[in-house]
Amino acid sequence: MINYPFNIQNLDENNKTISYKNRGLSLEKMINDSNKFYVFINKALIYKKPTPIHIVKTNKQNTITEAFFERPSTTDYNGIYKGKYIDFETKETKSKTAFSLKNIQENQIEHILKVDEMGGISFIIVYFTSLNKIFIYFAKDLRDFLSKNQRNSIPIEEFIKNGKEIKITISPVLNYLTFVDDLI
Amino acid sequence: MINYPFNIQNLDENNKTISYKNRGLSLEKMINDSNKFYVFINKALIYKKPTPIHIVKTNKQNTITEAFFERPSTTDYNGIYKGKYIDFETKETKSKTAFSLKNIQENQIEHILKVDEMGGISFIIVYFTSLNKIFIYFAKDLRDFLSKNQRNSIPIEEFIKNGKEIKITISPVLNYLTFVDDLI
Repeated sequence: MINYPFNIQNLDENNKTISYKNRGLSLEKMINDSNKFYVFINKALIYKKPTPIHIVKTNKQNTITEAFFERPSTTDYNGIYKGKYIDFETKETKSKTAFSLKNIQENQIEHILKVDEMGGISFIIVYFTSLNKIFIYFAKDLRDFLSKNQRNSIPIEEFIKNGKEIKITISPVLNYLTFVDDLI
Repeated sequence: MINYPFNIQNLDENNKTISYKNRGLSLEKMINDSNKFYVFINKALIYKKPTPIHIVKTNKQNTITEAFFERPSTTDYNGIYKGKYIDFETKETKSKTAFSLKNIQENQIEHILKVDEMGGISFIIVYFTSLNKIFIYFAKDLRDFLSKNQRNSIPIEEFIKNGKEIKITISPVLNYLTFVDDLI
């Protein structure tokens, strides 16, 4: 159920022509653009990891002719902000009521909790596309929730109560590091 | 001149059967194994980023049938150790006298210096295969060297003087975080 970023390069080239007011922009695109802005103003160095690929065959021109997508062992994004290690995963859901934990791999949840235990700052960013709402939800809240609930999904109420809503702004489009500031 | 890790998955599966006393083991393999050990004993979470690939075509089975290698925008390895952000690049050279800076991209050097400026811990690990010597060389020394030298390579004497030699040990095979401890 992983949404692979086939066209990430093409999207990135269109940076300046896309209006964020248009619906249908992916969370990934918005986060990538925000990260580029952070790098540009020297605020943070946060990058998306490439999609892991198992290469089977290459030809003489060093073009890959057979390869498979692999399951990522960690999260999609990591980097440094104010000297701190930052690590997070982004997910979209069409649901209006809850974020299904089937959307995120168990080893990714474990990784997020481990980073938090080691003194890093880790979280998930979830985009409820049907509600047009984006939440940042930190590892400590995720741990609390999972310890108290044997549920397969996190209801929207939990994001409203313990998460923070990230509003779309300009430069950067998603200023999620504001909420990281509250933790440092 | 980038040495792409075509067989990384196969190598990883052979973990327990390979003796590090045998020559010809890649630096990447030794670092990956050391990182696995660090993760296993809960000492650090450091991972190699997947090789960036530009995917052109996939078939109905979601197999990639055409793709190209891309230039990485950052370094190969990053993660967290003792709450600190860790970031580094590993390189091998056959030279007995110097590490040519042609082996490392300019944007990667810039990234390493930026991480250091932001309070992270960044370095390069260079394996002089003909000498069978491996050095860790921190960003601050790299910056000093580059500011004083307009040279295209770092002589082995500089690694001996300002770097630290990483000796091959057991569990982990390259205990490079020992030298990071000296900085924290």
